[in-house]
Amino acid sequence: MVGGSAIRFQTESIANRAGAGLPPVDQRESVLNNVSPPLQARAPGSPEPDALARLTDLVGADLHACNRTIVARMDSPVALIPQLAAHIVAAGGKRLRPVLTLACARLCGYEGARHVELAACVEFIHTATLLHDDVVDESVLRRGLSSANSVFGNKASVLVGDFLFARAFQLMVADGSLPVLGILSKAAATIAEGEVHQLVIQNDLATTEEQYLEVIRGKTAALFAAACEVGGVVAGRPDAECRALAAFGDHLGIAFQLVDDALDYAADQATLGKTVGDDFREGKITLPVLAAYHAADGKAREFWVRTIEASEQKPDDLDRALCLIEQTGAIQATLDLAATFAAAAKNQLAIFAPSPLRDALADVADFTVSRAR
Amino acid sequence: MVGGSAIRFQTESIANRAGAGLPPVDQRESVLNNVSPPLQARAPGSPEPDALARLTDLVGADLHACNRTIVARMDSPVALIPQLAAHIVAAGGKRLRPVLTLACARLCGYEGARHVELAACVEFIHTATLLHDDVVDESVLRRGLSSANSVFGNKASVLVGDFLFARAFQLMVADGSLPVLGILSKAAATIAEGEVHQLVIQNDLATTEEQYLEVIRGKTAALFAAACEVGGVVAGRPDAECRALAAFGDHLGIAFQLVDDALDYAADQATLGKTVGDDFREGKITLPVLAAYHAADGKAREFWVRTIEASEQKPDDLDRALCLIEQTGAIQATLDLAATFAAAAKNQLAIFAPSPLRDALADVADFTVSRAR
Repeated sequence: MVGGSAIRFQTESIANRAGAGLPPVDQRESVLNNVSPPLQARAPGSPEPDALARLTDLVGADLHACNRTIVARMDSPVALIPQLAAHIVAAGGKRLRPVLTLACARLCGYEGARHVELAACVEFIHTATLLHDDVVDESVLRRGLSSANSVFGNKASVLVGDFLFARAFQLMVADGSLPVLGILSKAAATIAEGEVHQLVIQNDLATTEEQYLEVIRGKTAALFAAACEVGGVVAGRPDAECRALAAFGDHLGIAFQLVDDALDYAADQATLGKTVGDDFREGKITLPVLAAYHAADGKAREFWVRTIEASEQKPDDLDRALCLIEQTGAIQATLDLAATFAAAAKNQLAIFAPSPLRDALADVADFTVSRAR
Repeated sequence: MVGGSAIRFQTESIANRAGAGLPPVDQRESVLNNVSPPLQARAPGSPEPDALARLTDLVGADLHACNRTIVARMDSPVALIPQLAAHIVAAGGKRLRPVLTLACARLCGYEGARHVELAACVEFIHTATLLHDDVVDESVLRRGLSSANSVFGNKASVLVGDFLFARAFQLMVADGSLPVLGILSKAAATIAEGEVHQLVIQNDLATTEEQYLEVIRGKTAALFAAACEVGGVVAGRPDAECRALAAFGDHLGIAFQLVDDALDYAADQATLGKTVGDDFREGKITLPVLAAYHAADGKAREFWVRTIEASEQKPDDLDRALCLIEQTGAIQATLDLAATFAAAAKNQLAIFAPSPLRDALADVADFTVSRAR
């Protein structure tokens, strides 16, 4: 377990703020490697669909329509744009964020078709940030495939990201709702702030857990929150319900990123769909590293200072980092915090009447954590 | 003069389409090095203010307010964002695009204050594209200073560009006009398309002049057009006037970029505010290169194929390129085409009653070309 009292204190205080207290999540085996593209949600031979696949099934027709919108609206007379966009947009991914928009709209009783276009906006914003992230992180793998920047170059990735971002706003304008435009433009600014903040704390082991959580709340949870809130807004639901959906998305997004950061030190490459140890090599400050650093003795601290702060890494250092993280229980601590946020997310759904969609959204919160266990 | 008949034919057809026919612009000496930041528009000791300085003076109070909005709205708790943004936003530049929004709104008799925030949006979109451009072009100089990417790194430039872009949309949403949001979101998508198109034709001497003009219409003129049109829309003017302003901006923007592309082979570094020969070293396809290539004999053609298409450049090649461009009259041909577009821009102003603002806008169109003579 994590040894440093400072970090334990912070973890508890943040868990309390998230309004936790639900029983621990179940301990199913990791099913991350069974998460398939949305239109073939059930992996062949898998015993039963996971929670995300069940949620995706519930909005299947909407997601089909959303995928058609995505393909239609990423088109351009400049052929490189749909080519590059198809590499990342159409080639798979879980479509988690647009599924959230679709599911939240239906949860709120929405019966129109606007949520389909807005879900496509959410996916375009997400895709634009992925393209720019991969340039910033110099990633070579994304979802188990070569990243767009490694195939098409950094320049094209930056510019096609800009195009998709602008196209998302064009779609929102066509939809015509200023409240929706407000939610998604604010989310886009918050995402960029979170990404810059992450850049600022890179290599800095003095980063507090609170700062780290601010970063992931910005870079990841802001779009989850907006994706969910838009579902309520498009359905014309009262503020309290829209706020609950935003909070559900926020907590779910934080849980999701915590698990992602844990998996970067705990999964094999096939499971992860990206290069294992990327975060370590970049000197990215994530909770597993912070927890291991705070729990470390003098010699281990020197290791972290050399590898993360001074960016001096030798071939065997990743193995030692994995070993130190394992010894200190840093992965477990990170997943425990993720479970706390997932439970807090589920609590936000209490405002809605019970329904298969509400159950499926709650199960996705659990699944976000259980996929890593 | 340009020798290739194909390129001459194209130049004429495009000039005709632009609705030209005005007398040639006057032949004043270059005053580009007298273009100062907007709040000290008149360079000490300069005999008289240039056309842009006069236009800027006419909207001086509005521009002061716009600059205050820019500084206020680029703030963020993540200190690196205002630091980097200040490096490029607050450090100068001509503020040409926001001045166009302010001037067009006043030309249309607008008496409110919304145009100030919208002019700031225009500048934020412009700044975001500059930040990304400099990353894509690997530029080290911008407006005579170190570029943001060379000071803060590519990663921060990409992400702060994203932030400014999102912030522009937040400001537009606060303004609350869907037509304005439509104009600027479409412009943003068109800019990105133009930039990607430019990337596609890079190093390709088979590019037609028409393709080149499509590129600069997208990457540069789209924002000029939107900046002007927004001025008419915010003033609630009829469609015909708004369309005339958009066409004025479009033609002005094309003239502006043609001159910029000429100056890259015709100015010294102090005048240019960026490294001379950048376009050549990147193998960027611009009209001076296309014109010189089409006019070239066998040996000179081999030179262009080696340096631009094969990107094999030796230390003396820039001097030879400048010499070949000089010999073929490629700069003059480029500036002549710019003058045609500037004249077409001025024609679009005929729909408005004569006024000091209309005269100043017309003079800016002339000045766009005369700054290079």
